[in-house]
Amino acid sequence: MSQNIYDEREFFQSYIQLDRQRKGLDSTPEWPRLRAMLPDLKGARVLDLGCGLGWFSRFARTEGAASVRAIDLSANMLDKARSMTSDDDIAYEEADLEDLTLPETSYDVVFSSLAFHYLANLPQLVAEISKSLRRGGRLVFSVEHPLFTAPTSPSVTFNHRKDQIFWQIDAYQKEGVRTRDWLVEDVRKQHRTMASYINMLLDSGFRLTDFVEWCPSAEELASNPHWDIELVRPTFLLMGAVKD
Amino acid sequence: MSQNIYDEREFFQSYIQLDRQRKGLDSTPEWPRLRAMLPDLKGARVLDLGCGLGWFSRFARTEGAASVRAIDLSANMLDKARSMTSDDDIAYEEADLEDLTLPETSYDVVFSSLAFHYLANLPQLVAEISKSLRRGGRLVFSVEHPLFTAPTSPSVTFNHRKDQIFWQIDAYQKEGVRTRDWLVEDVRKQHRTMASYINMLLDSGFRLTDFVEWCPSAEELASNPHWDIELVRPTFLLMGAVKD
Repeated sequence: MSQNIYDEREFFQSYIQLDRQRKGLDSTPEWPRLRAMLPDLKGARVLDLGCGLGWFSRFARTEGAASVRAIDLSANMLDKARSMTSDDDIAYEEADLEDLTLPETSYDVVFSSLAFHYLANLPQLVAEISKSLRRGGRLVFSVEHPLFTAPTSPSVTFNHRKDQIFWQIDAYQKEGVRTRDWLVEDVRKQHRTMASYINMLLDSGFRLTDFVEWCPSAEELASNPHWDIELVRPTFLLMGAVKD
Repeated sequence: MSQNIYDEREFFQSYIQLDRQRKGLDSTPEWPRLRAMLPDLKGARVLDLGCGLGWFSRFARTEGAASVRAIDLSANMLDKARSMTSDDDIAYEEADLEDLTLPETSYDVVFSSLAFHYLANLPQLVAEISKSLRRGGRLVFSVEHPLFTAPTSPSVTFNHRKDQIFWQIDAYQKEGVRTRDWLVEDVRKQHRTMASYINMLLDSGFRLTDFVEWCPSAEELASNPHWDIELVRPTFLLMGAVKD
């Protein structure tokens, strides 16, 4: 059973105030790179895992997706998502991705944004996703980057002149729970190595097609100087894969 | 033109005293995982890039490789390699991997151990390798891991109780030259991100098949306690790919 932080009132109230929740995909810096990994969605049967407020599900429909099944653990999120949509071809559904069973060969595209790093049993979900995709179908997802999740406690430090930032790694190879204070205390995430993410795809019959460690462009950095930490270590890992 | 540190006398004299040079592949901790990525070498036409003292080239021949072309920048290394072999089916050759041109569809297996992270123009070499492999041929290689090469100066630190090691990352996304003091001063290496290594394979028509961030087992760690830094961050990245 996953930690359902999104249904804790204090977290939820803060979370839905974040730009990426209020304004949607175009307000998130990694979206253009993630979008570029997607195939043409016209007529596609889409599965959106960890759909949150449903921004991607609605995007998929505006791109011509035939149907979207949108799953999230949080009843709060789904209620709000439903209130933002009147579209019978998006089916919102409350379920825990940790023990999801999916129908065989039923989807053309599976998408997930920043949800997989909460899951202890991700390899099982990836195997289910593989089973549920048609041959040639696509899995496109983002997670918190292994360099971001690696520290057992978040670890930005500075040199003595305070002109250089360091990110301190203490346990890259030690996979498992990391607790973070983010909006509230003790949010539980799962650290995985790069090798684990890649090999669970290869082991489930995927072929890796896209791999992006998100980094701001010079222009983006000029407009958002606090993103300088992204040059030190990435926050987002984006991957695309095709079912063989 | 690559820095030819291996032909500097002081470096070379120290280098050939390293266990992995004196004792060969079985003395190197990452070899079993790298070996597992190799196809059956019986009858294979093999290219060994950055062959050093020729340990892999000789291994390939004992495994039944039909021929091995073994290339290195260092005349010293090649002289010593030749002195260790009497095998007409290993052709040692002095060349700079930075500007190597390879014949089309001529090899079944291309191997490289800890050489590619010296090369500024690796994408061009990977494209040449792809051209030179038959369809279904394999590229198997190791490099210094991007987490290992990332720091602009090597950066092991400790907490105040000295019971925890940190590896300080300051510029993961800034690719390019890193100078290190290793056996001698100012050895020049190239830092690349994980995404760069992966995408140069995908862009050259390879399919990624193997991806290992080398980490000691509990038994290996018990016998080699100083490898504890490997749990903090890996030193070796091993990759296998097949030409599509």
